[in-house]
Amino acid sequence: MIRNGVGRELPESIPGVACLRPYSGNATGDSDVGRTAARREPKVLASLEEAFRRSEVEDGMTISFHHHLRDGDLVVNMALDVLANMGLRDLVLAPSALFPVHKEVLRHVRSGVVRAIQGSVNGPVGKAASEGLFDLPVILRSHGGRVRAMQTGELRVDIAVIAAPTADSMGNIGGVSGPSACGSLGYAFSDAQYARRVIAVTDTLIEYPATAFSIPQTLVDWVVPVERIGDPGRIVSGTLRVTRDPLRLIIAEQAARVIEQSGVFVDGFSMQAGAGGISLAASTFIRERMRRAGIQGGFISGGITEQSVEMLEEGLFHTLLDVQSFDTAAVASLARNRSHMEMSASFYANTAAKGCVVERLDTAILGATQVDTNFNVNVNTESDGMLLHGTGGHMDTAAGAKLTVIVTPLLRGRMPMIVDRAITVTTPGDTVDAVVTERGVAVNPRRKDLLENLNGKGIPLVDIHDLKRLAEEMTGVPRDPLFGEKIVGVVEYRDGSVIDVIYQRL
Amino acid sequence: MIRNGVGRELPESIPGVACLRPYSGNATGDSDVGRTAARREPKVLASLEEAFRRSEVEDGMTISFHHHLRDGDLVVNMALDVLANMGLRDLVLAPSALFPVHKEVLRHVRSGVVRAIQGSVNGPVGKAASEGLFDLPVILRSHGGRVRAMQTGELRVDIAVIAAPTADSMGNIGGVSGPSACGSLGYAFSDAQYARRVIAVTDTLIEYPATAFSIPQTLVDWVVPVERIGDPGRIVSGTLRVTRDPLRLIIAEQAARVIEQSGVFVDGFSMQAGAGGISLAASTFIRERMRRAGIQGGFISGGITEQSVEMLEEGLFHTLLDVQSFDTAAVASLARNRSHMEMSASFYANTAAKGCVVERLDTAILGATQVDTNFNVNVNTESDGMLLHGTGGHMDTAAGAKLTVIVTPLLRGRMPMIVDRAITVTTPGDTVDAVVTERGVAVNPRRKDLLENLNGKGIPLVDIHDLKRLAEEMTGVPRDPLFGEKIVGVVEYRDGSVIDVIYQRL
Repeated sequence: MIRNGVGRELPESIPGVACLRPYSGNATGDSDVGRTAARREPKVLASLEEAFRRSEVEDGMTISFHHHLRDGDLVVNMALDVLANMGLRDLVLAPSALFPVHKEVLRHVRSGVVRAIQGSVNGPVGKAASEGLFDLPVILRSHGGRVRAMQTGELRVDIAVIAAPTADSMGNIGGVSGPSACGSLGYAFSDAQYARRVIAVTDTLIEYPATAFSIPQTLVDWVVPVERIGDPGRIVSGTLRVTRDPLRLIIAEQAARVIEQSGVFVDGFSMQAGAGGISLAASTFIRERMRRAGIQGGFISGGITEQSVEMLEEGLFHTLLDVQSFDTAAVASLARNRSHMEMSASFYANTAAKGCVVERLDTAILGATQVDTNFNVNVNTESDGMLLHGTGGHMDTAAGAKLTVIVTPLLRGRMPMIVDRAITVTTPGDTVDAVVTERGVAVNPRRKDLLENLNGKGIPLVDIHDLKRLAEEMTGVPRDPLFGEKIVGVVEYRDGSVIDVIYQRL
Repeated sequence: MIRNGVGRELPESIPGVACLRPYSGNATGDSDVGRTAARREPKVLASLEEAFRRSEVEDGMTISFHHHLRDGDLVVNMALDVLANMGLRDLVLAPSALFPVHKEVLRHVRSGVVRAIQGSVNGPVGKAASEGLFDLPVILRSHGGRVRAMQTGELRVDIAVIAAPTADSMGNIGGVSGPSACGSLGYAFSDAQYARRVIAVTDTLIEYPATAFSIPQTLVDWVVPVERIGDPGRIVSGTLRVTRDPLRLIIAEQAARVIEQSGVFVDGFSMQAGAGGISLAASTFIRERMRRAGIQGGFISGGITEQSVEMLEEGLFHTLLDVQSFDTAAVASLARNRSHMEMSASFYANTAAKGCVVERLDTAILGATQVDTNFNVNVNTESDGMLLHGTGGHMDTAAGAKLTVIVTPLLRGRMPMIVDRAITVTTPGDTVDAVVTERGVAVNPRRKDLLENLNGKGIPLVDIHDLKRLAEEMTGVPRDPLFGEKIVGVVEYRDGSVIDVIYQRL
C-alpha cells in the first residue's frame, strides 16, 4: 500500500488504471494554502523580449504571424527587431501573408536573422525571393493548406505571435474593437491551436473576462501590451475597390450572367467572390439579379466586404461566414450581427477537417494573373515571372465550388492573360469551369452540363484557344521571361502535394 | 524529374521540402470535373446504427456522452440499445455524467454489452457500482480532469455520441434552441475535439449553415436525425430549488457574511456557487449584500441559473461564463445576451489548458456529503458508503478559488456531516478555507489571514473538532458502513493522480 497526499492508503495497482499516480498534495506550505499551484504566474509581460525568452526561443525556430492587419501591421516588424536584438539567427517565418509594409523582413534576411519563409509573400518580399535572396524556397500554401500543414505537423510552429486588437489578462483575444480592430481573426486560430507557445501582442488590454473574443485563453501563453499594433488607415486594404473600368464592368456583368444561367442560381445558393475589382463588381451584378429573380441565397463566405454586409441586411443572403473582414463596415457588422459569423481557416477550407465551408460553395468568382488553355490558373507569379502574390483561398474555393468562374481581361499591360503555358500553376484546370473575358466566355469542355445550360442564353461562348489567339493577335506572342536553375518558391496544393515550383528570375 | 498531375516537371527533391509529393490531380473523370474529391459524402445518415458502422465500432471501444440533457436525456439509452442490437460487447462508457434515467445502463452491463464506466455516475448506476456490479472500477473525474485526461490520452474516446438540440447537415451543433434546448454544451466540446469519430444525434435538423452554434462541423463526422433526443420537462434538473428550510437559510446567510468579510468582497469579485439548495440560497444573500454595499462584480462561472441571469441583467456582475445552463431562463439568456457566454470544460477548469477560469475565481460556495477535521471534503459517497454522486467541478473550483466555502448542515438524516475521517476524499482540505454550518463557522487554521478578517465581525468562529463533537453529541458516534476488499471506484484528482478509492459496500 502507498499513502497519498491526503493520507489515504492506495494499492500499488488497480485493475483498469493503467498508470497509478498517488495524489501528492498541491500544498506549497505558504499562507495561501495549497492552491498556489493552481494559480499560474501572470501572463501579462512587460516586453516582447521577455515573452520570447520565456517561450525559450532558439536559433532556427519557426515563428508564425497572421495578416489580418494587412498593410497596417506593425507586429511582424516589431517582433523581428526584438529577435534581431536578442541575437537570434536562421529563423523561419510562417506568416499567413506578408505585405509591402513587411519589406523590413528583407533586412533581417540579409543579416541572417531570418533564413526562410513558409507563407504567402505579397509584393517586395516575393520580388526579393524571385531574385534569389533566400537560400531555401518560399513554401506557398493556400489558406486551407496552411492549417492542414500545421495539423499534420508538416509545418511545426514553435512560437506564434498574434497581433491582438484586444486581449484580456488571460489572453482572450478579440478582433472587433480597439483602435486596430480588424474584425475576423480567421487565419490566426490555427497558429493559436498548433504553435508550441503563443504570444498575444495588443494595444488594448481589456478587463477580464473579455465578453466577445475569437481566440480563447486556453491556447495563449503570454500577453504583451504595446503602444500600437497597427495603422488603422492601412488595415483596410486598397485591393477592395470595385472596378469602374468599363471593360472590366463588362466582364463582371458577363460573369453574373454565366452564374445566373449556370443552374446553381436557385434559392439557397452560396457564393464567394475574390477581393479583386472585377470579382467585387460581379457581386454587384449578382445582387441585382437576385433582387430581380427573387432569389434568396444561403451564405457568402471568405473575405467579407461592405457589399456582403448590405446583401445580408437586405435579406438576399442569410449568413456571412467571415474569415477576413475587408472594411470597417464588415468589422462593425461582425461585432453586432449574429448572422455574420467569424470562421477559422480550418472551418473555411481545411481538407484535414471533418468538412469545411468550401465544400458547400455553389459558386466562386476568382481572379487570375494567367490562365492556360487547360484552364490551369496562375495567381502567384506575374507575366514577368515575379512572385508577387500569395495563393489565398483560390485553389480551396475552386476545388470546393460547384461552379468556379475566373474573371480576367484578355490583356494586362499588353501581356496576354490567356496563354498556352502559365508560368506557374496555382489552381488546377480540372477545378475551373469557366473563364470570362471581355471577348467571350470559355467553358471547360469537360463541363458539358454547363455548356448546355449556357447555350442559347445570349452568352458569347468561345473556345479558350480562340481567346488565346485573340490576345496574341493584339500583342504578339510574348517572350518568356528568363529563369535560372534555382527554385525560389514551391506552390503546394491544398492537400500538401507540390503543384508547381517557381524558379529564380534572371 | 517527375511530371505531376498538371504536367509540371518537378525535381526529385527540393531543399527545405522534407517529403515531396507531386500533385496527382484530383480528377475522377466524371462529369462533375475534378472536384468530386473535394466534396465529401453526406454526413446525414438514416440511423444511429449506420453511424456506428461507418465509425467502425468494435468490441471494447470507449463511447462518450455528455450530460447536458440531464435526467431528460434519451440518447445514452438509445445508443446502448442500438449497440446491443448490433452485438457489441465489453464497451467502456465515458459519460460526463449519468442520471437516474440511465439506470437502463445496468441492463447492458449485466448482458455484457457494457464492461466499465469512466465518468460521473449519479444515483442508480453508482449504487450498482457500489454493490460490485462492475468488474472494473468506475473512474471518477472532475469536469476539468475529464478534459485533461482526454488531452493527455489517458482517456481515449473512440466514438463520441453527442446529443444535439440542433444540428445542420454538416454537423454544426447548437444547444440554445429546439424542443430539447439545454443551453451550454460546455462538457461536449472535449468529446468532439478528442474522439476519433463524432456522431451528432439531433431531433432538430436546421438549415446550413447554423448561425449560432457551439461545436463546429470541422469536428463532426456524422449527423443522425431522430424523433426525440430529450424530455424537456426533465432537462431542467430538480437539484436547483433554492432551499426554504430555515436551518439551511441560516447556513446560507452565514456563508454570505463570511464572504462579505473575507477580503475578496470588492469590486470585480468573481463567484461560483454549486447547484445545491444552500449554495443557491447563499447567492441570494450575496446579491442583497452586493446591492447594499454597491459592489460591482466581475464574472459568475459554472452552472448558470435564473438567479445568475438576474444578477447579470441587474448589473451586479458583468459576465456569466456558462458551462451548464440549469434552467430555461439561463438557456434563453445564453441565446440572447453576449455577456452570457458559453464556455467549454477546458476553458472552465482544465489544468492542462494554458489557463482556465477557476484560476481566476475569488470565491466558490460548495456543498459536501462529508467534511473531515482536516477540511477534506467528500462529495462522491454518502454516509452509508454508497457512491451516489459525481465529482463535478468541486475539486476544480476549490483549487482555483481564493476563498472556498463549504456549506453543510451539521447533520443529515441523523448522520453527522463533520467527521474524523470521511469515507471518501474528493477535494483535499488544503484547498478548503471555511466550513459553514448552522452551529458555527470553522476556518482552516492555515488561513490565518482569513481568521483575522473574520474575527470580531459577529461570525461565530469555531474549531472544526468542536463541530464534529457537537454533531456526535446529537447522534452518537456513527458506525462505519461495512466495505469489502474490491475497489469499485477510483477518485482521480484534477491532475490525474488518485486521491482516493471507493470499496464495495457489503
